[in-house]
Amino acid sequence: MNIKTILQIAAAVTVLVVPGSLHAKSPVDWVDPLIDTHESRWFYFNSACRPFGLVNLSPDTQTKGSWKSGYLYGDSSIRCFSHIHAWQLSGIPVLPTVGEMNGHQGMDAYQSEFSHDDEVVRPGYHKVHLKTYGVTAELTSTTRVGFHRYRYPTTDDAYVLFDVGAMLGHGPTLTAEVTRVNERELAGMTLMKATNRRKRDTPVFFVARFNQDMTSFGGWREGQVEEVVDSIAGKDVGAFVRFETDATEPVLMKVGVSYTSIEGARKNLDAELDHWDFDRVVEESNECWNERLSRIVVEGGYDEQKTKFYTDLWRSMLGRRIISDADGSYADMTTDERRVLRVPLDDDGQPAFAMHNFDAWWGSHWSLDILWPLVCPDVYSDICNTSVQMYKNGGLIPRGPSGGNYTFVMIGDTAAPAIASAYAKGIRDFDYELALEGLVKNTGPTGGRYYGGYAKKPTPSAYEEYQEKGYVSRANALSGGHGRAVTSLTLYNAYHDWCIAQMAKAIGRDDLHDRFIQGATNYRHVIWPEKQSAWVREGDGSWKSDFKPREMRFEQDGFCETSAAVTTFYVPHDPMGLAELLGGADAAAKKLNEQFEASVEERFHLPGRSHGNALVDYANQDGTGMAHYFNRIGYPWLSQKWVRAVQRETFGGTDPYSGYNGDEDQGQMGALSALLTLGLFQFDGGSGIDPKYDITATVFDKVTLRLSDEYYDGKSVTIIANNQAPENVYIQSAKWNGEPLQTCFLPHADLVQGGVLELELGPEPNKSWGN
Amino acid sequence: MNIKTILQIAAAVTVLVVPGSLHAKSPVDWVDPLIDTHESRWFYFNSACRPFGLVNLSPDTQTKGSWKSGYLYGDSSIRCFSHIHAWQLSGIPVLPTVGEMNGHQGMDAYQSEFSHDDEVVRPGYHKVHLKTYGVTAELTSTTRVGFHRYRYPTTDDAYVLFDVGAMLGHGPTLTAEVTRVNERELAGMTLMKATNRRKRDTPVFFVARFNQDMTSFGGWREGQVEEVVDSIAGKDVGAFVRFETDATEPVLMKVGVSYTSIEGARKNLDAELDHWDFDRVVEESNECWNERLSRIVVEGGYDEQKTKFYTDLWRSMLGRRIISDADGSYADMTTDERRVLRVPLDDDGQPAFAMHNFDAWWGSHWSLDILWPLVCPDVYSDICNTSVQMYKNGGLIPRGPSGGNYTFVMIGDTAAPAIASAYAKGIRDFDYELALEGLVKNTGPTGGRYYGGYAKKPTPSAYEEYQEKGYVSRANALSGGHGRAVTSLTLYNAYHDWCIAQMAKAIGRDDLHDRFIQGATNYRHVIWPEKQSAWVREGDGSWKSDFKPREMRFEQDGFCETSAAVTTFYVPHDPMGLAELLGGADAAAKKLNEQFEASVEERFHLPGRSHGNALVDYANQDGTGMAHYFNRIGYPWLSQKWVRAVQRETFGGTDPYSGYNGDEDQGQMGALSALLTLGLFQFDGGSGIDPKYDITATVFDKVTLRLSDEYYDGKSVTIIANNQAPENVYIQSAKWNGEPLQTCFLPHADLVQGGVLELELGPEPNKSWGN
Repeated sequence: MNIKTILQIAAAVTVLVVPGSLHAKSPVDWVDPLIDTHESRWFYFNSACRPFGLVNLSPDTQTKGSWKSGYLYGDSSIRCFSHIHAWQLSGIPVLPTVGEMNGHQGMDAYQSEFSHDDEVVRPGYHKVHLKTYGVTAELTSTTRVGFHRYRYPTTDDAYVLFDVGAMLGHGPTLTAEVTRVNERELAGMTLMKATNRRKRDTPVFFVARFNQDMTSFGGWREGQVEEVVDSIAGKDVGAFVRFETDATEPVLMKVGVSYTSIEGARKNLDAELDHWDFDRVVEESNECWNERLSRIVVEGGYDEQKTKFYTDLWRSMLGRRIISDADGSYADMTTDERRVLRVPLDDDGQPAFAMHNFDAWWGSHWSLDILWPLVCPDVYSDICNTSVQMYKNGGLIPRGPSGGNYTFVMIGDTAAPAIASAYAKGIRDFDYELALEGLVKNTGPTGGRYYGGYAKKPTPSAYEEYQEKGYVSRANALSGGHGRAVTSLTLYNAYHDWCIAQMAKAIGRDDLHDRFIQGATNYRHVIWPEKQSAWVREGDGSWKSDFKPREMRFEQDGFCETSAAVTTFYVPHDPMGLAELLGGADAAAKKLNEQFEASVEERFHLPGRSHGNALVDYANQDGTGMAHYFNRIGYPWLSQKWVRAVQRETFGGTDPYSGYNGDEDQGQMGALSALLTLGLFQFDGGSGIDPKYDITATVFDKVTLRLSDEYYDGKSVTIIANNQAPENVYIQSAKWNGEPLQTCFLPHADLVQGGVLELELGPEPNKSWGN
Repeated sequence: MNIKTILQIAAAVTVLVVPGSLHAKSPVDWVDPLIDTHESRWFYFNSACRPFGLVNLSPDTQTKGSWKSGYLYGDSSIRCFSHIHAWQLSGIPVLPTVGEMNGHQGMDAYQSEFSHDDEVVRPGYHKVHLKTYGVTAELTSTTRVGFHRYRYPTTDDAYVLFDVGAMLGHGPTLTAEVTRVNERELAGMTLMKATNRRKRDTPVFFVARFNQDMTSFGGWREGQVEEVVDSIAGKDVGAFVRFETDATEPVLMKVGVSYTSIEGARKNLDAELDHWDFDRVVEESNECWNERLSRIVVEGGYDEQKTKFYTDLWRSMLGRRIISDADGSYADMTTDERRVLRVPLDDDGQPAFAMHNFDAWWGSHWSLDILWPLVCPDVYSDICNTSVQMYKNGGLIPRGPSGGNYTFVMIGDTAAPAIASAYAKGIRDFDYELALEGLVKNTGPTGGRYYGGYAKKPTPSAYEEYQEKGYVSRANALSGGHGRAVTSLTLYNAYHDWCIAQMAKAIGRDDLHDRFIQGATNYRHVIWPEKQSAWVREGDGSWKSDFKPREMRFEQDGFCETSAAVTTFYVPHDPMGLAELLGGADAAAKKLNEQFEASVEERFHLPGRSHGNALVDYANQDGTGMAHYFNRIGYPWLSQKWVRAVQRETFGGTDPYSGYNGDEDQGQMGALSALLTLGLFQFDGGSGIDPKYDITATVFDKVTLRLSDEYYDGKSVTIIANNQAPENVYIQSAKWNGEPLQTCFLPHADLVQGGVLELELGPEPNKSWGN
């Protein structure tokens, strides 16, 4: 009996006696990549990729834009499979076709119809039938290599198109090239034009290898097929390979990708994928995700809650992509010259960390900075190392790096809370002293804080006013963009000053602590007690006259993608100080509770991007700490109530039309939703000395956090919720390792020793617990 | 290589190369029995059962009640596995235990903890781990036999408890008995005490057979273990069998069940399950469901929609249970004497139909009467035959039979629309002339219409007043119960008169048509034009003075589990006539539209059973036609709008806490939800001559109805929805078999010839289409 026969029997047996879903699911099985995919950003949808993978291979139904592009659930045609869906980056679109070669006609012509009915989408795997061509395509990947399996009909007219000149996610492609290396290999490059955010043109390289000889190779330029010997290059060019195919034998293709060079791409391919066993890579990818996701094991709860939780967790480990090669080489563009550098090697000669590409840390103090230390401190460390490395290379700690360079997305120095949180949690295998130096430098004339939103050069006026007066006034609003959000900027600066002060204190730099702790109270300059609200100062220090807590215009009214009503509670580091300005804790709680009450019908977010009208806003980062404010001012039962309401109403959706309400923001909203579900949070971002967790009631009966033995002494933390029920959102009492826990906080230092947090839940608040 | 080795390889291979869910799902795989199980009625939850199965084997977490009993999702302990979850019927609770025998201590003592985490629940299969005992139990069934597989630890203290004297669903158990037939077989009986609805004590019989010898047999009585030789009988008795078990070898148990006799139970067991291959029964059960569910194949739509649709469809084929034996024997209790009768045999010597047990047809004209002809006309025929058979046996067409007898649940003659609909659809393999005779007899002094809700004997005053004046007034409200719902009763009588008239006309009984068609306009007597509302008449004909469209008290204000505002639109057979009374179609549409607008926030139903306060009520049958009223008065785009809104908001839930909003009512709300999802309905219940379907937009891209070749000429009907999207709820244009379809109706006569209905959808109403 040969293996093929056994496999046939296996398949038959499987169908006969083991109906598919009679087994308990693993964490990875719960993930549903299709949740809320109806109007993705370019990088939102992911299927064939590894955690933080450089390659993110998936079908695109829309191209030519950063928003409403990539894979959109409601579409019925696939334009291409492309390999990169990252912040400001995209590349290497391919498509298998059959019949007359039509690559030169462009995606509108050659796209293929498909149906969700025979589609399979899982972490690390995507299977879809291209109806137009009768091709069943399967996609998987390693970290840096896309792996394709195409089942064509039997034909001598089977193609793979390489439409490398096409515009994909964020901006036009300037130039591209494809070369036939041999009968089984292509190599090429695409040069992405600079965008408003990524200011330098950025190349990406690939090597594609097939498991059978091509019967011909050709190309096109500007819509016309062109005679090609072995290479085509220039603007609007593409290439194709042709195969004779047999319906019983799939064509396999591996595509190594690199930002350094073609040789880098080839090395990545050879290093990560030295065989042709597609199913093995699917399984390894599945296991790789399962290992990551199993850092948190949840029990109890119903299927939708598990689906959403593990999808949230998966998302938190997706968005911030690796950009360095397997050997640690990476493209640095922080100086005038593009350089290929290599990260330091560890004792085993392996890269000590991987360089990452990511959107700003804006708001991540209420999401990733809290979740990552619990589930992937190793990657958090990598990203801190990325920041330090870029500081070494180019002199700035990045706000949100892309294409090996700085980008000045959003405002403030959002790296400050992130790096301070890593240090505070015990993630210290990066040069934190140098990081602190960089954060301090960011407050100087050439530093990051001098860059307004999307600015191409530092514009000192706003930050200088802040340093002089303690706030940024309307007089120093930068023209255009987020630079106009002066009150938000003041609040961010105050928080970021506090973060630097805390980290400085922790590592013995009292001088820096004393210097920056002054700034921490600057939020007081933009809270108008008479109005119980954050508001805008004029250049002469007076309050801007047309006070309104809502109906803000985007930024120009002084608030960054939010309203005054929401921003009022943006003082992560001094909630009681804020409460005093609002008339005391009782008045502050009453005001915020009324805002929540008024936001129930709209499910705690407004549709679209109308953040300026919100009273509560869980669809954008600035509002995502609101429900936990109560914990910090003596009303923990209101945190318990509203956290659960937000978790259910705002983030509970599990279909393609709900779940994240707009912009998931590369793992941030996923991480936030996961934290709300677990009942763990840190209102101050965990960036202070001795950080602690805000506790609310998890939706599960039991949660087990498997701690990293690389960073923490404890093995695991177990949260047990007794008397769990949908209406039992209130904590009646709690124990930590058997001892009564009277406050609604658990110190990080205790948590990482491991233990059991046992909560008794009930349907009515116990107002005597938690304070 | 032997088969065991191959299976091991198969298992390994399965894990290695075929992660569980990489294959497209079959209809049965979409069903989720856990939806909305947090507060079931006794019969709501189903796992190990076949379509309409006599046996419905599943774990019970609550007993001793009809409501909030059976399997409730939020509970953490299983009290027993019991075999019958039917309307007014329950029986044969068992549980495997380990350790000291504790059956005599009752379910509170011997119940076992369990967790949903390692539970598998599918149509026809339930697997659960009994934590308290370390036993993994699997349940499956044939139509009349429960099949158990218990994996005990290795022990000589393994038991199966037969707590046959315990109270389960609806009322106490009067007496019970268990006898050891031999070392591998028990036989027994339970006598269910009469309930308010089922007026006779009713026995159920069983034979349990094991795959290994028991090591001992024993019993208990009234909480005390008792010496038993081979039999124990009486009040509050139970029995146990003991086994020596080996952890590697499961104990198997088959339990045949019958309402006729122990011999009937044994015959059912032998007829349906003559082997011990548990996995085969699981697979056959799965296939049996899949075959039934595959009558409708849907494509497009997202996972939650498919999950809900197939769960709806599955529910529609669950609630109305078979009660006759495999050989056609059944217990008849329609006369003073309990008789075991046998249904007629067909030419092959097989029972011509199966007898069924079911709750009233109340409201099924807007659910089952429409869906069943499309998906299971054979079963619809069986149930019509059941009605005729009971008419032959006891002289009444039943309103909702249980335990082989009449029960007078709810009010009116709800069988009239059901039987008329079957006839009108071409389901005529029952003695429809006799059925018509019975429906006519039901309007006479000893007939069903003389029975108020739950009445034990006919109470003529109300119906006699109806016959004299055309309405029932408050003067003739029967004391207590649904008999007080005089205005609802008037409306029901009018509709039921119309149904009889239609059926009579169709079979050539013009005399009866002319007699009953008079009654069809009687609804006019209880619509108060001045108030644009249904309202209550006093005995002198005046309108009851305290008019209020809402805030009804249950029944005593004249309306049957509903409000005047909802009931106003309860004229299924004469929507335009009603509109005239409401001030014309425009005024009627405006009024109803306002009611819908006001009900958006409450998602078209009120919580709990507060039906008397509703403006729109999709949580109870009387309100479930409201959204389709617009179709019938020239406003089809408002039907399109509100049908979709109800489908999504009221019935869209797929977790254990949503989906049916209270009382699913044995398949009725499932069938309704399925129809809303398909975009097919019949406002008049399809009971008239030449019935037609109300068309609204399906949520799927494509729906294929596979028609029964036993009843219809056409093979299939395909509905194609072009431009499908969540916001595209409005039909722009339609084609039937390629020809433009200008109205929002499709005749049943056309539909059953087969064809293609093609809809063009869009986000704005096309008000020129559909009229």
